[in-house]
Amino acid sequence: MDAQTCLKKLQCVGVLNFSTVGLDGTPQARCISAIHYTSDALYFFTARGKEFCRELLHDGQVQILAYTRYKEMIRVSAKAVPVPEAEQKRCIDLIFQEQPYLSNVYPGATREIGIVFVVRDMRIEYFHLGVKPIFRETYTLGKGKHTPKGYEITGECIGCGKCVQICPQQCVAPGTPYHIAQEHCLHCGNCFEQCPVQAVTKKT
Amino acid sequence: MDAQTCLKKLQCVGVLNFSTVGLDGTPQARCISAIHYTSDALYFFTARGKEFCRELLHDGQVQILAYTRYKEMIRVSAKAVPVPEAEQKRCIDLIFQEQPYLSNVYPGATREIGIVFVVRDMRIEYFHLGVKPIFRETYTLGKGKHTPKGYEITGECIGCGKCVQICPQQCVAPGTPYHIAQEHCLHCGNCFEQCPVQAVTKKT
Repeated sequence: MDAQTCLKKLQCVGVLNFSTVGLDGTPQARCISAIHYTSDALYFFTARGKEFCRELLHDGQVQILAYTRYKEMIRVSAKAVPVPEAEQKRCIDLIFQEQPYLSNVYPGATREIGIVFVVRDMRIEYFHLGVKPIFRETYTLGKGKHTPKGYEITGECIGCGKCVQICPQQCVAPGTPYHIAQEHCLHCGNCFEQCPVQAVTKKT
Repeated sequence: MDAQTCLKKLQCVGVLNFSTVGLDGTPQARCISAIHYTSDALYFFTARGKEFCRELLHDGQVQILAYTRYKEMIRVSAKAVPVPEAEQKRCIDLIFQEQPYLSNVYPGATREIGIVFVVRDMRIEYFHLGVKPIFRETYTLGKGKHTPKGYEITGECIGCGKCVQICPQQCVAPGTPYHIAQEHCLHCGNCFEQCPVQAVTKKT
């Protein structure tokens, strides 16, 4: 899997979930399908009067989530910015051309209440629970950054093997220290809780 | 439409999007299908080692989003709380019994790394973009509260009819003052932006 394939999968899913943080600090989510895809960016349309638009203009932080027909989860973490004023009309028209149903929602000139945001720098997480062991990987596009997640085993490890026994995905291998196969790890925390010498630490 | 029907529709969708606010203030979302439904509550399973669990234990704020096969959006805003310690095992076993695939992810006793949260007091928003005019309604369950959203026309209205002309969903009707049919309003903000006397206000 790679970032480009993930973007293509998002496009196949079509209706994606866009999460933001409300101005009151609460989680906010909505379904968006008014999206134009390129090989390295994602443009989406919303209306200036929506809370969603205010939240994006506030800090741009957005997480885009999709669940594919193959039971894969794809999650994009990014900062959305409005496309430059001079390009707004062209972008709106492009999205409406690609998705004619939008003209039923915003007929005629009413599409001008819309605003198009673009997402370029992305962290893309791919997560598949339907294979055994489960599989996850992270990719970046543009200036997107990896964020450490999950658990690792430190030099405190005494090699007792407890973590191997209790890992639901059997993703821990013996060694000095023992090693977690990150691509198969659920991040469930069982090794972290059960290690008798606290040799498992959470990545931050 | 009503709250009970919305819950049934969520159950039909199966895999729902759960949004929270990360401890760093960023939006966080993931797909969850390990859910048990009753007529007035929703129980869901996650693992104690996941960021999701930490976020829920922090303030419990969650928004649950689904897109149905009939192109309806259903959004639940709620506070999730862990079920009492004495009921955890029963709840976990119930969810694993209803969804046998979970035993592939957490085989044997490893399910004990799980924790079940319950959501009882909900605001449920129903939004259908596929009908004309579009349709939205809000319901509550338990102690869930309505939150004012969208726009309304105040006594400043001079009856010029501009808002009627430019509403994408033609949901404004003449009157003193003119009136927005809230159940058909996109919340796009076009009337708010174009009213010549600023008679349209945002509900807060």
